[in-house]
Amino acid sequence: MLVTPDISSLKYTIDKGVKYFELAAEPVNQEILPGVFIKGWGYNGSIPGPTIKVYPGDYVNIRVYNHLPEATSIHWHGLNVPNVMDGVPDVEPSPRIEPGHFFDYHFRITNPPGTHMYHSHVNVARQDMLGLLGGFVILDPHEVTINKDYLLLMQEWSLVGLEKGKKVEPGNYNLNPFSMDFNMFTINGKSFPYTTPMPVEYDDIVRLRFGAIQINHHPMHLHGHQFCLEKSDGNPIIPSNSLLKNTVLVASGETWDVLFKANNPGIWPIHCHISHHVSNNFTDGTGGMFTTLVYE
Amino acid sequence: MLVTPDISSLKYTIDKGVKYFELAAEPVNQEILPGVFIKGWGYNGSIPGPTIKVYPGDYVNIRVYNHLPEATSIHWHGLNVPNVMDGVPDVEPSPRIEPGHFFDYHFRITNPPGTHMYHSHVNVARQDMLGLLGGFVILDPHEVTINKDYLLLMQEWSLVGLEKGKKVEPGNYNLNPFSMDFNMFTINGKSFPYTTPMPVEYDDIVRLRFGAIQINHHPMHLHGHQFCLEKSDGNPIIPSNSLLKNTVLVASGETWDVLFKANNPGIWPIHCHISHHVSNNFTDGTGGMFTTLVYE
Amino acid sequence: MLVTPDISSLKYTIDKGVKYFELAAEPVNQEILPGVFIKGWGYNGSIPGPTIKVYPGDYVNIRVYNHLPEATSIHWHGLNVPNVMDGVPDVEPSPRIEPGHFFDYHFRITNPPGTHMYHSHVNVARQDMLGLLGGFVILDPHEVTINKDYLLLMQEWSLVGLEKGKKVEPGNYNLNPFSMDFNMFTINGKSFPYTTPMPVEYDDIVRLRFGAIQINHHPMHLHGHQFCLEKSDGNPIIPSNSLLKNTVLVASGETWDVLFKANNPGIWPIHCHISHHVSNNFTDGTGGMFTTLVYE
Repeated sequence: MLVTPDISSLKYTIDKGVKYFELAAEPVNQEILPGVFIKGWGYNGSIPGPTIKVYPGDYVNIRVYNHLPEATSIHWHGLNVPNVMDGVPDVEPSPRIEPGHFFDYHFRITNPPGTHMYHSHVNVARQDMLGLLGGFVILDPHEVTINKDYLLLMQEWSLVGLEKGKKVEPGNYNLNPFSMDFNMFTINGKSFPYTTPMPVEYDDIVRLRFGAIQINHHPMHLHGHQFCLEKSDGNPIIPSNSLLKNTVLVASGETWDVLFKANNPGIWPIHCHISHHVSNNFTDGTGGMFTTLVYE
Repeated sequence: MLVTPDISSLKYTIDKGVKYFELAAEPVNQEILPGVFIKGWGYNGSIPGPTIKVYPGDYVNIRVYNHLPEATSIHWHGLNVPNVMDGVPDVEPSPRIEPGHFFDYHFRITNPPGTHMYHSHVNVARQDMLGLLGGFVILDPHEVTINKDYLLLMQEWSLVGLEKGKKVEPGNYNLNPFSMDFNMFTINGKSFPYTTPMPVEYDDIVRLRFGAIQINHHPMHLHGHQFCLEKSDGNPIIPSNSLLKNTVLVASGETWDVLFKANNPGIWPIHCHISHHVSNNFTDGTGGMFTTLVYE
Repeated sequence: MLVTPDISSLKYTIDKGVKYFELAAEPVNQEILPGVFIKGWGYNGSIPGPTIKVYPGDYVNIRVYNHLPEATSIHWHGLNVPNVMDGVPDVEPSPRIEPGHFFDYHFRITNPPGTHMYHSHVNVARQDMLGLLGGFVILDPHEVTINKDYLLLMQEWSLVGLEKGKKVEPGNYNLNPFSMDFNMFTINGKSFPYTTPMPVEYDDIVRLRFGAIQINHHPMHLHGHQFCLEKSDGNPIIPSNSLLKNTVLVASGETWDVLFKANNPGIWPIHCHISHHVSNNFTDGTGGMFTTLVYE
């Protein structure tokens, strides 16, 4: 069963064969370390927003409410949807959602099983850097071989008012969406050691799904194991097993699904390998875009 | 037929079986948005320079005039040429072209059909960041299956005197080639919405050829379709169809050719997925390294 | 025979079937250009540290002395080692090595032949950016087809007190490990033209092994030849010859081994293709992460 550590899955109702989802784009105070909140924008109270899970062939209707002070939209990144549902207003014939309004995105899932993302496509340089994004996974109804399945979305942030190398004190921090000088780094909205470890059991087949959507490209490194690159951007890599690696570069806009067998007991780090991305505000110790796999 | 939107193809003459091309390295005021000019360096009046098209086995002579205030050269990036023709003065036995002089680069095309680039290899940190580069495509004389074929070269710029987040007023802007803090982003020398849309027809087989040469790595994302990675650095990827993606990371120095079938009518964005690279000077709205595919 | 230009191989002794190595983490004044020293941290007097060479199945014991003013550790990046030997203190059950102490990392080599790295995993954002890393290569005892075999480790530095675009005067420079504004770039601890050229002979089969461990991703470009991607992160790419390229993006934490036939005589550059990374402090001329292949 797919789990997005620290992030919920989006509930839905079914009516006449259509799955109905609801997302509210809104200001979110996301707690990235205990007592440390970023004043960002997210969906349904979290950054990233809740993970949407569907099956191939599903008919979906996703109602997106805009509780932001400006227009927004959602682009279903990687999905083959009709132009009007693709969520790039002014360029495509897809609407802006004005503040206080909503829009029903509705389409059929025609992609194969795989990992995708959703994010705003209005004022991207600002809205995406404030956090308007989430995971969109097409599950495989026939899958039997995967014992653990985790989705990890990486984000980088520029918190206003931090002095480099100094401890990050609890508080509510504004974000500078235009800065390229990032000081905090999260996986599913948490910085280490506040990320939730991922349990595995010996002999499990484990899938990790990585996604990035903002500015930086994150080379995700797993300790103690080699993994097979199974899919990228929601599409299978053929032949499977062609590339065995322990570090995969996840560029902005990409997803990579990797598989490995849990055959080396312990507590194993999974982290971005960029030196600064595994610290909190350049302080000593381990932080940032870092989580662990824990054998039970 | 290969088209480089917003950029011309370089004309040539044939004499005794040799194709003769001429390039002039020179200061260029490139209009990246209406009335917004960057004072860069390019070839034959444009940045990037005109696209060179040849066939496998061609004998070519490319006369490069230097109308710049300092020495320059051209490196035929990706081509297997003799050392003396490779264009890295002082390191290789390949000459510097002094101001007011020219040099005849002449070689035979021994690479297979594919996408390459040319650029200065003198004072690279400055000359390349001022714009001295262009596309070099080896066409396939036997190709029949491609209906549309587009070359897109991505560049990032640091315009002097812009205040982040403020509208870019018309004017002539100096470039800071040493800055890593880029504020404008172009495809084939234009920022959106000044990029020229690329027409396709339903059922077309479309090739996009991406290239980058400067500082940043650009993950190019296509909406509404998945594409197959056909070639990289001018070489075929075997087996073909092994990687189907919707976002391809184009690192500095790389080319990636991708193929897809036009089977989803509409107006579809193609853009770098780095949030800041799809804005003009961090302003709201869509800009920068962004263009569209338009079904006719 | 594997050569790491400008870097020594780590000697060992054998006792009862175990190979004993010794590394001392310590302050190092590394000469990156003639008379230009960086005050970094390395192993056994060099940055990167000496290259460790082993064979599959080897039992190894690597004693790591800490001559630094703070605790450290070594992570054997890419190797499948037991959790307690993996070198991530506080997260894994692997010890911190306090100043003045040592720890014996001991494990069996269970990975196949390929290229790996080692580096500190304590205060990574600072210790790795000061230089605590090296190469770890598992040699193939049955290999017969490779005539030349070179390991190249790329690093980026922020020297304190340099004015951009000005010549780098001889001296001892402090490093700012928290800066993202790098001004000097090295391969195996040297900046061009201080890098040692790599000799090849016509018809040689040449392997280049690239590795990066710090902040930037380096697209390494070879002139005059196309190379085959043989391995990544120490694992074979299957099918071999599936990707022929002339530029390979080496992300932080990745290794890439490439193969080519020396069939084009001359002096050929191999360099990072990021424009600023082939200059010394943004000055004119060629510098930085640049070396050459020289036909003899």
